[in-house]
Amino acid sequence: MSIETVLDKIDANLPEATERLFDLLRIKSISTDPAYAADCAKAADWLAAELSALGFDAAARATPGHPMVVGHAGGSGRHLLFYGHYDVQPVDPLDLWHRDPFDPAIEDTPKGKVIRGRGASDDKGQLMTFIEACRAWKAVHGTLPGRLTVLLEGEEESGSPSLAPFLKDHADELAADLVLVCDTGLFDDRSPAIEMMLRGILALEIVIRGADRDLHSGLYGGPAINPIRVLTRILSDLHDDDGRITLPGFYDDVDELPDDVRAQWQRLNFNHERFLEAVGLSVPAGEQDRTPLEMVWSRPTLDVNGIAGGYAGAGFKTVLPAEARAKLSFRLVSRQDSRKIEEAFRAYVASQLPADCTAEITTAVAAPAAVNDLSDPAFELARAALAEEWQLPASYTGSGGSIPVVSLFKSILGLDSLMVGFGRNSDQIHSPNEKYDVESFHKGMRSWARILHALNA
Amino acid sequence: MSIETVLDKIDANLPEATERLFDLLRIKSISTDPAYAADCAKAADWLAAELSALGFDAAARATPGHPMVVGHAGGSGRHLLFYGHYDVQPVDPLDLWHRDPFDPAIEDTPKGKVIRGRGASDDKGQLMTFIEACRAWKAVHGTLPGRLTVLLEGEEESGSPSLAPFLKDHADELAADLVLVCDTGLFDDRSPAIEMMLRGILALEIVIRGADRDLHSGLYGGPAINPIRVLTRILSDLHDDDGRITLPGFYDDVDELPDDVRAQWQRLNFNHERFLEAVGLSVPAGEQDRTPLEMVWSRPTLDVNGIAGGYAGAGFKTVLPAEARAKLSFRLVSRQDSRKIEEAFRAYVASQLPADCTAEITTAVAAPAAVNDLSDPAFELARAALAEEWQLPASYTGSGGSIPVVSLFKSILGLDSLMVGFGRNSDQIHSPNEKYDVESFHKGMRSWARILHALNA
Repeated sequence: MSIETVLDKIDANLPEATERLFDLLRIKSISTDPAYAADCAKAADWLAAELSALGFDAAARATPGHPMVVGHAGGSGRHLLFYGHYDVQPVDPLDLWHRDPFDPAIEDTPKGKVIRGRGASDDKGQLMTFIEACRAWKAVHGTLPGRLTVLLEGEEESGSPSLAPFLKDHADELAADLVLVCDTGLFDDRSPAIEMMLRGILALEIVIRGADRDLHSGLYGGPAINPIRVLTRILSDLHDDDGRITLPGFYDDVDELPDDVRAQWQRLNFNHERFLEAVGLSVPAGEQDRTPLEMVWSRPTLDVNGIAGGYAGAGFKTVLPAEARAKLSFRLVSRQDSRKIEEAFRAYVASQLPADCTAEITTAVAAPAAVNDLSDPAFELARAALAEEWQLPASYTGSGGSIPVVSLFKSILGLDSLMVGFGRNSDQIHSPNEKYDVESFHKGMRSWARILHALNA
Repeated sequence: MSIETVLDKIDANLPEATERLFDLLRIKSISTDPAYAADCAKAADWLAAELSALGFDAAARATPGHPMVVGHAGGSGRHLLFYGHYDVQPVDPLDLWHRDPFDPAIEDTPKGKVIRGRGASDDKGQLMTFIEACRAWKAVHGTLPGRLTVLLEGEEESGSPSLAPFLKDHADELAADLVLVCDTGLFDDRSPAIEMMLRGILALEIVIRGADRDLHSGLYGGPAINPIRVLTRILSDLHDDDGRITLPGFYDDVDELPDDVRAQWQRLNFNHERFLEAVGLSVPAGEQDRTPLEMVWSRPTLDVNGIAGGYAGAGFKTVLPAEARAKLSFRLVSRQDSRKIEEAFRAYVASQLPADCTAEITTAVAAPAAVNDLSDPAFELARAALAEEWQLPASYTGSGGSIPVVSLFKSILGLDSLMVGFGRNSDQIHSPNEKYDVESFHKGMRSWARILHALNA
């Protein structure tokens, strides 16, 4: 039976597949906020039931955090381990959404139909492209495609604290030949892509404390140290005027891009101006001697992701706060070691701390950069399958985002990851009004069917 | 009839006076948050009813903001205008309170009994010392003490936006000889004090905006400008390493303290170490060549009162936010002009703003410093009355806090203000667990009775 029959089945199934995705999108599985723990469990149960109905031996498995969904399907040939995550980002600021983030709908836009809702792209829509491809395959062939294990995580958006222990504890059960990861995007919003390198991440929270209580700034302003003033000084001095990070030794383990890879990236149809214009910007703000693409795919960065201190609500409060806090994240590349950078950060903060202040620094996430070994022929087979579906060349690309799980699959299970996804830059993942193009959902399912066909041929 | 009879009446009334104060403290009259507008109106009505019951011709009068309570009592002699405010500060962080901020109670502490609750000291407890003194006077004499107008505001903690228009519109009705203001403290927690100078304030909010939406810091971190980074740089560079404010011209209109006043302050029993130790600090953080007392009473300062941007809640979100905001306040002294300083701030921010960023700056409060003319004999009469009640010399002092209304009484009504209050540094006004010593409440009532007696003799 040819792959065309499976593809036809996918085409015919699109309305019901969309309804199933809506069911999943309605579940408020925000992993980072403990208030939504029951919703995360509900999403895991929903997925375990879907997998079981398709013939997987599947269950939601308890972890110290949110459950891990694992499903096995026997079969012969290359053993593939599919990974996706069912948790989503928080939705604030809620008032910037034009509809309820958890009431998904199809919307018509000038660029085509989109599925609107939190998680539509990251990562519920993406992971369902794979499950729906399996469903169509099963309907046509009566069996699932080859030897498959599915692993769906519920803590990707909150640092995957349970994943490493789970992989270690179940290394035998999860042994495979290759990991398939569906959490990335198209290149240039049009061309299929296989990501070959991902930046790592070191996410930290810092709390600066001064007086033992909030003070009246009229009464104590001046003689009493203000933790916001200390924190802003610390954060501000982390970049120099050229956009480089000032921590001593920060660039020691950063390799320059090999000339041939740089040449390949320069040939890519990447419009640096449009990349910034798309979000209302015009001037690259990072290292002044790098292109935006190079910056995002291969250079380390530092961003403050959140800051809070004192009273920032409606009106005005003349408070001199007892503490101020910030969440910041370094994106790591090449051989950068998160422990070494954290030590440099701690030493820097200690050197900047005035009398009477303390700094508490906690690590939220730490994962090294990942660079995949492309020698497995599966990569070239998948690249050809993708090119056929999208009728455009498929490229190897880098990525600015961190998918720490890819490093864990490598270090714990010894597996490379084939990273294929169908998101677009315009998807507004992590932002209000997240969406996933219906085309991404539809051709994504077809892409996985073609890849599974190619890898099991 | 001697003043002693009134004082005895106050002593006898203390339990019921405390219960009445509790009734007022239970009203959540937080003026800065529109959610509590009805509570502010309720507090105003409560006070108007109390004043009416005492024989004042009193009413809660509508303003564009929260109501103004005005009460008149005819009589002869010096016309006194009493001012207090019934609104209170927000209560967050709520989890640092050891009891419901709006469920007041008497608590035993190692330093004596205190009244615990939001507004106990600032300013409900203080304003009730005056009303209760009037009540005792009425009970003993059958009339109120002399010619009195009472003006109780509901927007002091949110910048008094309605006060200036109200004073202008009712200048004839509010004409008087002297203002009595009860919103200040004892000196050194023991000695009575009359404040002679108050710092002014310029409170601003700044919002820095970059991209037109929140971005994923993995996708855009590096090339996209981060408004938190811009804001922290702007705020951090406002102080130099010696604690001086760097705005050009900022110190131009700051007069040095006259030598005799500096000498008088140096004789005061002010323990600079204990002032900081009391809040867990040890090293003065402001201008390095000034004593803490000089800093707080007579030097201009700048504090960031609040900062917010990105995601600072539980967990971690790799967001590169579209905006970051801060609330900051300058304390002004001498002839400093808030308009000139705001212009310097706007010019500084404009000079620091990178490409693709905008800054929105709004003024929340602006009031010049106030220095009272002490030539009216009322000041010396009140000083003697206070010394008699507290059995300690009463001093003229300065104050770090701003009471913008004092400037308005001077500029609009042409009146000086006799500022007398009974708060203590340990009252934790604007902080969790605000309290007012029962001794302050009790001797405060007695102090006003003595002052009213002296001014009407």
